[in-house]
Amino acid sequence: MELPEYASDKEIDQAVDKIREIFKSDLKNGESYDEGLYISHEKSVLDEHADTYFNTHHALDNERSHYVLFPRLTAQVSEILKLCHEYKIPVVATGGRSSLEGHFIPTRGGISLDLSNMDAIVHFKPTDLDITVEAGLGWEALNDYLEDYRLMFPVDPGPGATVGGCVTNNSSGTNATRYGAAFANVVSLTVVLADGTVVRTKKRPRKTSAGYNLNGLFTGSEGTLGIITEVTVKLHVKPKVERVAVVPFKTIKDAANSVNEFLISGINLNAIELLDDKMMKCVNDSGETTRKWTQAPTLFLKIGGSNDEVVKSTINQTKEISAQHGSLDFQFASNEEETVELWSARKVALWSTINQGKLKNNDIQLWTTDTAVPISRLPRYLVEVKKAIDDAGLENTLVAHIGDGNAHSFILYHPEEHAKAERIVHDIVKKAIELEGTCTGEHGIGYGKIDLLEEELGLIPIDVMRKLKLALDPQRILNPDKVFRMDPNKKVE
Amino acid sequence: MELPEYASDKEIDQAVDKIREIFKSDLKNGESYDEGLYISHEKSVLDEHADTYFNTHHALDNERSHYVLFPRLTAQVSEILKLCHEYKIPVVATGGRSSLEGHFIPTRGGISLDLSNMDAIVHFKPTDLDITVEAGLGWEALNDYLEDYRLMFPVDPGPGATVGGCVTNNSSGTNATRYGAAFANVVSLTVVLADGTVVRTKKRPRKTSAGYNLNGLFTGSEGTLGIITEVTVKLHVKPKVERVAVVPFKTIKDAANSVNEFLISGINLNAIELLDDKMMKCVNDSGETTRKWTQAPTLFLKIGGSNDEVVKSTINQTKEISAQHGSLDFQFASNEEETVELWSARKVALWSTINQGKLKNNDIQLWTTDTAVPISRLPRYLVEVKKAIDDAGLENTLVAHIGDGNAHSFILYHPEEHAKAERIVHDIVKKAIELEGTCTGEHGIGYGKIDLLEEELGLIPIDVMRKLKLALDPQRILNPDKVFRMDPNKKVE
Repeated sequence: MELPEYASDKEIDQAVDKIREIFKSDLKNGESYDEGLYISHEKSVLDEHADTYFNTHHALDNERSHYVLFPRLTAQVSEILKLCHEYKIPVVATGGRSSLEGHFIPTRGGISLDLSNMDAIVHFKPTDLDITVEAGLGWEALNDYLEDYRLMFPVDPGPGATVGGCVTNNSSGTNATRYGAAFANVVSLTVVLADGTVVRTKKRPRKTSAGYNLNGLFTGSEGTLGIITEVTVKLHVKPKVERVAVVPFKTIKDAANSVNEFLISGINLNAIELLDDKMMKCVNDSGETTRKWTQAPTLFLKIGGSNDEVVKSTINQTKEISAQHGSLDFQFASNEEETVELWSARKVALWSTINQGKLKNNDIQLWTTDTAVPISRLPRYLVEVKKAIDDAGLENTLVAHIGDGNAHSFILYHPEEHAKAERIVHDIVKKAIELEGTCTGEHGIGYGKIDLLEEELGLIPIDVMRKLKLALDPQRILNPDKVFRMDPNKKVE
Repeated sequence: MELPEYASDKEIDQAVDKIREIFKSDLKNGESYDEGLYISHEKSVLDEHADTYFNTHHALDNERSHYVLFPRLTAQVSEILKLCHEYKIPVVATGGRSSLEGHFIPTRGGISLDLSNMDAIVHFKPTDLDITVEAGLGWEALNDYLEDYRLMFPVDPGPGATVGGCVTNNSSGTNATRYGAAFANVVSLTVVLADGTVVRTKKRPRKTSAGYNLNGLFTGSEGTLGIITEVTVKLHVKPKVERVAVVPFKTIKDAANSVNEFLISGINLNAIELLDDKMMKCVNDSGETTRKWTQAPTLFLKIGGSNDEVVKSTINQTKEISAQHGSLDFQFASNEEETVELWSARKVALWSTINQGKLKNNDIQLWTTDTAVPISRLPRYLVEVKKAIDDAGLENTLVAHIGDGNAHSFILYHPEEHAKAERIVHDIVKKAIELEGTCTGEHGIGYGKIDLLEEELGLIPIDVMRKLKLALDPQRILNPDKVFRMDPNKKVE
């Protein structure tokens, strides 16, 4: 398969000149055009839109877009894509740039489309339990806004991610066990296709079987099939009462068996997180929570209900089951303040690992894994994963969305240990795949996991994806080199 | 767009001769070939595979497949499709044939592929909370099997549907409010593409972001993109305790306001169903439940929890809220037997409507609507819908999956009133679309709602669907004339 002939630098400049006129023509009366707010060519801005510290695979020096554009309207995105389609300019949409697998590396130059100025709330009627927002709104800002209504958007990936980013990467987080990943919470999308066509996938029913499930297709397509500019998502009513329990166990296996028993007992937990002993130590060392924690594998549970009695009874039942599985302790928050305090230990997990590493070596690098396996296999798998990383002599901590079988090892390594870290990560993924699992439970494929996706699914499903891609973006301008390679025979195109 | 040149009768015969050899070669040692078990050309079998009483649009006399095939293995489906691809033979997959919109009408003749012999359980490990089954297994049989494990497959459409049918039509039912539609419960699919390629979409992680969401695409594609032969679905742990409450109200609005308050209070209801006064009368008249019910708009609620105390407390809270909204009564089951008894009234709703109609006129026809609207709009919508049907002088009853905003009017009409019924149904759908709803919450488009889908979404999303269809089935052999028309300019191709 031939590489498409993308636009020359000169053609890109020409297109951007036209785009400038579009931005200008959309100015309101009296507003003056400030180039920096719409179009950037500055090195620092191009750099920021190419890579982050957290990426497991980094952009090469020449992997920079020619321009970063900051549109404000779906209509502008549409006009931009029409021009990019005409000139064959690669376009990489970005939002919070908190993805971890090089999702937004502009491998072919062209244009980075930063949607973060598109952050309006478009339509909200609390009693419909949905909200329509522009793609660039942060998931945290959305939840802050919903707080007064006791509603929530349940997808909670890393801080900084946008709602559009959550959808385009099918993100999830700690709430997915109870409320599902992004995929399960999309009502409708506005998507701009590669040729500028604006598609509204659905109206606003909470449930529908009306035609192909375009929501399901665009969700998780990582900006390679279309650019999502507006999303209508399901909202969930926050539990009237919700408490956090923190339960350390002697071993991961004990903790996992306990979780299994919770599930079998039909206890509705709103989150089930596991932090390993090393993670708990990092949390303690970070000093970011007021309590000091037992340094043992620990479950963080969210227990919710419609009244105090329900929650109290559930806590008691949970405590009893934990004790039967050898819990070392059972702390639970007795009010909302304590709930926030207890959950904060889970929240600081990633940062405390990095800080711990940086204390020793400022050059320290981080590799976040994201495997998931069928849930019964998780305990054995976690033990093997930890041993593999330890045996390689790399510092690591672990958190798991244990109710979903999804685990993150945070592996610290020095730059010269990159090859070793890569090898270990590959082993971890291979093991997950052998257990019928996945190389990514929630972070996506991006640039970094293209080979792993092939190992996981084989070439046939990827060939189907390729056909879908070519059907919707025949010129391959949308986020090139992501998810899979277009030419199955070539390592690098 | 030109209609593809499908195979001639003679070519179909030739292909079926080859298929016969495939079936024969797959026989086990000593087994003899019984044509009737694999290939049928009998009129009664062809008729059965073309239409049902329940369809809102019926097959014309010439809309019959040439053969009905009964494969037993994915490999056979693959070989059959390779031949159909080679000969350009239309293929319509069928299962329980309980769909309502003419999903399996063989408009272009060819082959009906009856998957009901593919009903094996392929892989089951209860602690993984998933199961892999062949597509032809019934959802009821699956749930019977899971009973011993206190697990459930939550999708509960009409009786007779297969698990594969549930997925291919994105079915749901009374449990969807709590557990989501089929779409949210698919882990992995084995799909045979139009050219015979066998695709396994995923491995078996409960959560994944590995590549395009092919599960999301094939779920709800109604056999037009590929034929699903095996599915891995999520299972849910049955609530340890679950009780049914039956709560009549003076008006639909009171009932709906009560539901709204349940939701806002964060009460986790496992099902929220509304039956109108006429439906309750039918249930009473049917004599199929031992109790006699108040003939008023009535909520049927499933209230579950992990222990008696939790459920009791939730029932009390639910009762209190209902009373605040003017409930006329509040009956709840105090044990499992009574729970089944109370829920049975909901279960017999459809049949009792038909029987009621047939008592008066044996020729009576049934039209089942399936609109959904944003949930806050449902009460007003239901009142308008009932009035519209009443004003037209057609008998009707109503059930609503009120937590999802999804409602079914069962409209009875005499054959000569077909045009009137059609007009009313169109008005009902139009009203739903005006309220940002959908023409189908769970039954799908099939053959009967192609025009309504256009009204609902407009032509742009359908054009995207068309591109996807042509990318995966360029010869258009899979379930022709369903979901949308290939040529946007033609009413009939």
